[in-house]
Formats: sequence, C-alpha cells, structure tokens
Amino acid sequence: MTHPLFEKHRAKLEAALGAIHTRGYWAAYNEMPSPKTYGESAPDDGKRAFQAHLGQAFEIDQPGSTGWHGGEQSPYGIDLNVRYPVCDVQALIDAGQSAMPGWQAVGCEGRTGICIEILDRLNQQSFELAHAVMMTTGQGWMMAFQAGAPHAQDRGLEAVTYAYREQSFVPPEATWEKPQGKNPPLVMKKHFELVGRGVAVVVGCGTFPTWNTYPGLFAALATGNAVIVKPHENAILPAAITVRTIRAVLAENGIDSNLVTLCVPALRETTQALVTHLAVKSIDFTGGNVFGQWLIDHCRQAQVYAELAGVNNIVIDSTDAYQPMLRNLAFTLSLYSGQMCTTSQALFLPAGGIDTEEGHKSYDAVCADLATAVDGLLAKPEVALAVLGAVQSAETMARITLAESGALGRLLLASRKIDNPEFPKARVRTPVLLACDAADEAAYMQERFGPITFVVKVADTAAAIALSERVIATHGALTAGIYSTRPEVIEAMTSATWRSKVALSINLTDGVFVNQSAAFSDYHGSGGNPAANASYSDSAFVANRFRVIQRRHHV
Amino acid sequence: MTHPLFEKHRAKLEAALGAIHTRGYWAAYNEMPSPKTYGESAPDDGKRAFQAHLGQAFEIDQPGSTGWHGGEQSPYGIDLNVRYPVCDVQALIDAGQSAMPGWQAVGCEGRTGICIEILDRLNQQSFELAHAVMMTTGQGWMMAFQAGAPHAQDRGLEAVTYAYREQSFVPPEATWEKPQGKNPPLVMKKHFELVGRGVAVVVGCGTFPTWNTYPGLFAALATGNAVIVKPHENAILPAAITVRTIRAVLAENGIDSNLVTLCVPALRETTQALVTHLAVKSIDFTGGNVFGQWLIDHCRQAQVYAELAGVNNIVIDSTDAYQPMLRNLAFTLSLYSGQMCTTSQALFLPAGGIDTEEGHKSYDAVCADLATAVDGLLAKPEVALAVLGAVQSAETMARITLAESGALGRLLLASRKIDNPEFPKARVRTPVLLACDAADEAAYMQERFGPITFVVKVADTAAAIALSERVIATHGALTAGIYSTRPEVIEAMTSATWRSKVALSINLTDGVFVNQSAAFSDYHGSGGNPAANASYSDSAFVANRFRVIQRRHHV
Repeated sequence: MTHPLFEKHRAKLEAALGAIHTRGYWAAYNEMPSPKTYGESAPDDGKRAFQAHLGQAFEIDQPGSTGWHGGEQSPYGIDLNVRYPVCDVQALIDAGQSAMPGWQAVGCEGRTGICIEILDRLNQQSFELAHAVMMTTGQGWMMAFQAGAPHAQDRGLEAVTYAYREQSFVPPEATWEKPQGKNPPLVMKKHFELVGRGVAVVVGCGTFPTWNTYPGLFAALATGNAVIVKPHENAILPAAITVRTIRAVLAENGIDSNLVTLCVPALRETTQALVTHLAVKSIDFTGGNVFGQWLIDHCRQAQVYAELAGVNNIVIDSTDAYQPMLRNLAFTLSLYSGQMCTTSQALFLPAGGIDTEEGHKSYDAVCADLATAVDGLLAKPEVALAVLGAVQSAETMARITLAESGALGRLLLASRKIDNPEFPKARVRTPVLLACDAADEAAYMQERFGPITFVVKVADTAAAIALSERVIATHGALTAGIYSTRPEVIEAMTSATWRSKVALSINLTDGVFVNQSAAFSDYHGSGGNPAANASYSDSAFVANRFRVIQRRHHV
Repeated sequence: MTHPLFEKHRAKLEAALGAIHTRGYWAAYNEMPSPKTYGESAPDDGKRAFQAHLGQAFEIDQPGSTGWHGGEQSPYGIDLNVRYPVCDVQALIDAGQSAMPGWQAVGCEGRTGICIEILDRLNQQSFELAHAVMMTTGQGWMMAFQAGAPHAQDRGLEAVTYAYREQSFVPPEATWEKPQGKNPPLVMKKHFELVGRGVAVVVGCGTFPTWNTYPGLFAALATGNAVIVKPHENAILPAAITVRTIRAVLAENGIDSNLVTLCVPALRETTQALVTHLAVKSIDFTGGNVFGQWLIDHCRQAQVYAELAGVNNIVIDSTDAYQPMLRNLAFTLSLYSGQMCTTSQALFLPAGGIDTEEGHKSYDAVCADLATAVDGLLAKPEVALAVLGAVQSAETMARITLAESGALGRLLLASRKIDNPEFPKARVRTPVLLACDAADEAAYMQERFGPITFVVKVADTAAAIALSERVIATHGALTAGIYSTRPEVIEAMTSATWRSKVALSINLTDGVFVNQSAAFSDYHGSGGNPAANASYSDSAFVANRFRVIQRRHHV
C-alpha cells in the first residue's frame, strides 16, 4: 500500500526528519555546481535550456487560457521576451479544486513521495533555473545557482518534511474503547482523514523567485492543497519552469496536473480577484509592506503567511577581530547589492567609538574603515561583478540616487557604477554608506531596499541595544547582529532579541554572514515581529494548512 | 536540571503523549464522582467550598484593582451574589508582560510540569467547580461534574500535551558544522529559545465556562504566554476559582502569579479595550457570531482562535435500529436542553420517508415517533431534570417562545415546563420539535441556540446530503450525523463532510451521542468551516502560540 515514490525517497526523508530534529548542518542538494553531482554536460545543457526559452511562448497546457503576457526586463540588460499563458482565474481555481480529491486520496505518504520526486527533478534542472533566476533578478551567477536552485530546493524539502511530520502524527484510524464498569465497554472505530484547506496562492517576489516561493508552495502542496503560483511580474521564468516540472511529475503519477498552475495576470485587478476569491484558503507572500498589508487586510478568507519589509540592524559595541569584522560586514553589505531581505540596513555605533584589539576606534574611524573595507572588497572588477550582481529594479536605482543626494545622511561612501563586459547593459552599483544620528529616524527607520546602509551614531551601547529592540518591534527585521567582547552586552542583546523576536548573529568574522540563512538549521524569520508573521520552517508554517476530518461509528 | 514537577508528572505526560499519538480512549481524570478517586469527603467539601463563595467578595490579589463587580444570575434561580475584583486592563497587561520572562526561563519542561500540577490541583476541586458550573450555566449535576471538571481538565491536559510535543521538537541548541572541502569546516553554535508571543486573552462562554476555556488557556500558558481570562458575565465563578488555583500553584513554584489574571469588566468597552490592545497576541473565544466576528475583524494584532455558532445537522436515510436511533436522537436533543454547541439543530429527512427494520416509515411517521421518543425519555421528572438541567439565558427562553409560536415551522412537540422541587425558580423546559420544508431556509439555516430542532423535509437522500454540505460550508457546524444502512450513502456523506470539513457520526444507536466529544480522541471542531477556525486539539492549535528565537556564533 505504500506509495512507490515514498519508498524511493524514504532515506532522504528520514535524513531530513533527523535534520529538522537537530537543526544542525544538513543539505539534500549540493550547493556547488559540481559536474560530479550534476553531470559533465549539466552546465551547457542548462544554459541551452534557458536560452531556448528566450523570445518564445512558454507553453503550459492550463485551462481557461485567454492569451499571452510577458515583459520581464533583465537587470543584466539582455532581451528575454518570454510570453506566458494568461488564464482565467476562475478556471484555474475550478481546476485546482477538481484536482484536490485525487491528491487527498493519495495520502500523506504519496504526497510526500511525489513532492520529493518533484524537488529531485527540479534539482536536475538547477543550471537552467540558475540562469533564469540570474537573468530575471540580477543575482550574480554563484548566488543564482545556490539560492536559486539547491538552497531553494532544500527550503522546499524542509517544508515538505515539516508537513510530513505534522501529518504523520494524525493516525489514519483509532479504536476507542471506553470501559463501562461491569458492563461491556463502548467501542467505536474512528477514521481521521487529512484534508487540504482549499486553493493556496503563492505570490513570489522579484529578487528570490524560487527561494522565497518554494517553502509556501511545497508546504501547501504537501498538506493536500491545490496551488496557484503568482510570480512577480519581473521574475516569471523561474516560477514557470518550476510549475511545468511539477505538472509533469504530477501527471506521471496519475494526479491531475491542474493541481498546480501558473497565474500570470495581465492586469493588477486579476491578482486582486485571485487572492480575494473565497476558494483561496491560504496565501504565501514575500514582498513589500504596501501589498503585503493589503493582502492581510483584504484576504480575510485566507490564512496569510507574509514576509514583508524590515530594518535589519547590527549593534557594534567592541570586537577583538576588527579587520575580520569589517571584511564580514563589507561582504554582507555588498552581496547582491544589498538586495537580500536579510541584509543589514543600519549599524548602531556608540558615539564614543568602540574598543578593538587594535585599540580604541572612534565613530568616525569605524565609518572610514568600513568604507575602506567595502572599497577593498570590490576593488577587483571580477570580484565586484560576482559579488554585486546587478540592481533588480528601477526603484532601487532611484533609492541609490536619493541616498547619494545626501538627503538621508552624510555620504561616507558613494556608489560606483561598474561595467560588466559580458553584459554591457547591466545595472551594476556598489553600496552607498551613510552616516547619521540616532535622532534621524525618518532616514534610517524604514526599509531602504538595496545597497544603502546607515552607520547610526547612538549615545552608547545600552542605547544602541534599546534602539535595535524598538526598531525591530515596531518596523520588523529578519536579522540582527551584535559585535561585542563583553558577555554582559551579548546577554543584554540576546534578551532584547527575545523581546523583539529576531534571529541574532554574534561576532561574525568568518565565512558566515548575518544575511545568510541555511535551510534545516536557521529559522528564516521568527514570525514574531512586523517583518514576517511566519518562519521557514517550523511546525506553525505547516500545521494549519490541513484539517483533520473524523468520522466514527460503532464496531 | 529537570524541573521537579516535570519529573513528578512525567508518567502522566507520557501516557498523554501516547494518547494524542493513537487518539484512542484515554483520560487522565476520572469522570465518575467516585469517592475512591476523589475522597469520601470530597462531595461535601466541594459543596461547602462552593457555598462559601455565595454572597461574598471573591478575593484575588491582582494589580490595578478599582472595585468590585458581579451580577451572575443562576438558571436554577438561587442567589449567587458573588463579587469579583475589577482591575485596570493596562495594569493586568503590564503585570502579565512582567511575569513572562520568568515563565520563559523555566523552560518547556518546567512550564509543562507546572501546568499539569495546576490541572491536578483543579481536579481536586472538581466538586467545587462542578457546583459553580451547574449553578452558573444551568447544566444538570452529572454534566456539570463531568464536562465542568474532569472532561475540561482532560481537554486542558490535551492542549498542554500538544504544546509540549511541539515545543520539544525544537532543540535547545545545535552545532552546525559545514564541510569546506579540503579546508576546515565552518562551525557554529546555535541556540534556539522558545518565546511566548505575548499576552493571551481567553474569552469564556456562558454554557461551558471551563470546558471551552481550558484548551485555549492551557495552550497559551504552556507555550510561554501570560493569560488574561475574561469569563462570560454570567459564568464568572468557575473561571475565578480556576484562576485563583493557577495563581497559587505559580506562586508556589516561584513564578510571578500575575502571569495569569482574571478580567471582570464592569463595562463592555473595557473588554473591547482589552482584546484590541497591541500587547495582546492571541485571543481564544467561544460564543456567538456577532462578537466572534467583531473580534476577528477588529483584533488584527492577535491570532484569534474562535468557536462560533453553526447549524449542526443529521441526515436520516435509513436504519436497521429504528427505536435505538430514536432514543439516541431524543437524548441528544434533550441533553442540557439542547444548549451544547454540538447539539443537532436540523434533521434532514427524505420526503418519501425512510426504510427501517420495522418497515418503511413516512416522513410524518418519523416526526411523530421522534416526538414520542423525546416525550418518553423525559416522562419521569427525575430523569427529565437530570437530563435537561435548566435554560441558561433569557434569550434562549425567548427563542423557545418564538419556536412554539409556529412562526418557524409546524409544531411537532411543544416545550413543557417542568418543576424542580429542589430549585423552585429553575427555568426547566423540554425540547421543541418543528417540521419544515427544505425551502424554509430562513427558519432552520441559522443557529437557534437552545432546545429547538427542525425535522426538515428534503426531496431525497442525495438532496439531503447536498443540503447538509451546503449548510455546513456556508453556516458552519461542529457535528454532523448520518443514519443509513446503505454503504454508498455513507460514502457519499463521508465525501461531503470532507468537503464541508465537519466531524461525522455514523449510525449512533448506543451509548455515544453526536454531541459528545471525548478529549484525546475526538477532534472538537475541524477548524475548516465557519463554526470554528481551530480544533481541540491539534498541532495547529498550539504551534503558532510561541516563536523560536535563535542566536548563533562561531565556536
């Protein structure tokens, strides 16, 4: 009776279950684009597969097709010109609902096995997906490969694993035998059916179209729901490739492939009609506060799992590794031009400076040294291009211009434009560093998405910790950091993050960065401050996506 | 390092963990008021303890006390005249927040052990609580004892057990060791702290002031939150006794007792200020749709777990146990005068009647036989008084009057007033049975809380199943039933309940009733239809009540 794909992937599932139990290091998918793992021809095959999409209609045989839509603009300046089917929202919802009973019937083990098969198949497409992610988001190649493919697949598997664990706790049936003193016991047979809540919508973002989409997509799918993927208008291709592969694997396994569909709306009203539809029972969203809050306010029929904007920050009190700290910070601020939702936007520094193993450093000295560190990291163009990638949107370009104008703070480091010989039209910019005072809240206390960082002068360390807590409690954050050699400072910051509910990185000076979040170990977003109301992944991310429907009868 | 109360209650917790794993029969607390379990003097002691509250000020040493308020009216007509402290909402919230760090610090095992200790202590007060429940709600004695004390305690323990299981999945710490090829691995130590979301408010109902309060109360408490209990204005005493015991056990264990407080507002605006307070992060509510929907609409800062009204129903297709079926239905409709949230309100019967082992019965014959069965069950006054209890509210009395007027349907059985010799002023009424047509939706398709049941004439069984599904999907239900000798009918009803997401009881003719819901086995409410957005208890009921806050550093 066990599903063959559950048997096929049992070892991987058990390893993943072990990983979510220990939350140590574990990965199912190799993050290195190694020919040994992916095959000698994988890099070329993947690039060709990506290029074959360009200028074409991306065929997906979905119901209710009414035309074609596209328009993605590559931050690298290449022409994409891919068109995607536009489908009637009601037709997608009807088709998803029709597909759900068959998905329910295959059971938790069947769904889990098929989901892992899908992830394995997506893993085989990692190079194709990486090119699609790189060219739609502006990520550098290595990040596009890692975050776009194996890391996203691991986050998907993590959600599948949590979903399996929660579902597997519900016994399929039970015998209820209640003693009645001297009389025979009351005996009932009970059956517990796992039922998906309905149609799930996953709304993707423009910067991480797979990494931020797979957790919700696979959490909803594994728990028995139909899923409609609504990608960001500028990052459709990675989602389209994903949906086509999912549909193929579903069909191979006798599941109606309309269980998972792609929604590429030509009009904004179409998206609104989709997410407010009464049949839509959950929405996963990554993106800005305006649309995110709109979803939370208007989609009352659905559970909304939202990752929104925040003001990530780091308190710098002291260090015994000054240069490594600066190098670590420089890399964090530069990686993907600061366009990660986990990138630090504000560094809180005591006005009196900080103690280091090189002696005391004044506030101005730290500012200058950080600027030097960023410049140093990005001195070689080939390194700069690999680290920075390209700027994803015109809005981010405008924010860079605003920051450079001096309107938000004193310019510590101006943004440089770097030429990319391979992609002459690429928008490549180095980070802007600004200095400001703690009182300049209007400047730094809202998300300035992109390569813009404020070095904020705060009265002292205690004030910096208090400010960090207040910023996070009121504006949210996905990451916080502390540099200190003093245990009592680290303890105070730890307590502050318990109250503001944010993940804390302490004294990062080596090859781990505050903006990195590893599947199966780091909880991404705590779900407890305004930056996100859910976490990748924990029990809460999956437990409410299905319901237990019981029936009982006398034996 | 293990908490002594965790050790003390480890065996009970492990048995409870086994029970939620199998969902067979299990109970921690004896539902029979047996002297062997509770002690020879327990009945008298409990009654005296209850009586000692009457006419008194119920002292709880809470902060922000501004005066006294009471006014509970007993459905049995006795004078209660208990006054409770009225406390400033902000003072209660501040005190709860101040108590939370100590509760966090005791850890998951400490919280679990202390919660079970509290439940054991409440169990010792079962007779006192039963009298308090009986006299505030109108329940009959045996129900007040069982549902008010051991069953409520079991539901509380069930929530604690789920909370423990979910929290125990998060490792306190992890070593993350990532291979770096030929280089030394990256090694980080990670710590994962379980942090409550904030202040929880539990809003009780007038009919089951402990059974419907304990799940949310203990789920929130066990997961690290402060809890403010806001009882129904007419059923304060059971909640007050509960809160006082909780506070005593907390204090004995070095926890600030202001972690759990009682809020008895003298004004409705006070309740609104409480539930919309930004510090309140979860609200558990049982009650009517109007205030429930208000909470969902206005308390956007909190996760709302709501059990609202519904239209519970039973489809009767056929039976091979006609008289047992009628007796089972008669008891269901009579128990606590139909004032259970699980009582069936509508019976859907084919217009052409039903097949039974006594031959075919017409629609009218079944109506008449059901009326006879109810009359027969309640013929002996002592049985009637024990089964019916008393009518909890004047609103329910008015609904009985409306039903008897014939405005809602043809009267099959009028309500009788029964005298209670022990409590001469008790409001005791037998059920009203009404006949109506499926088209009379305005009559039966809204909750008519109380002893009012519609026998609805539907074209045929298929139409009855479809109607049941539509009623539940649009108006909600906590329970549904089917009587049929035909497997294909049971299968069709089963599928319908998967879509409408309601618990189904099949062919109940013995000592189990559709309105009974047993802790550790029956999921109470599916959380998937409008009658409730959560279930007692499953993972979803607890998993989102705490957050995991991580910190990481190099080793």
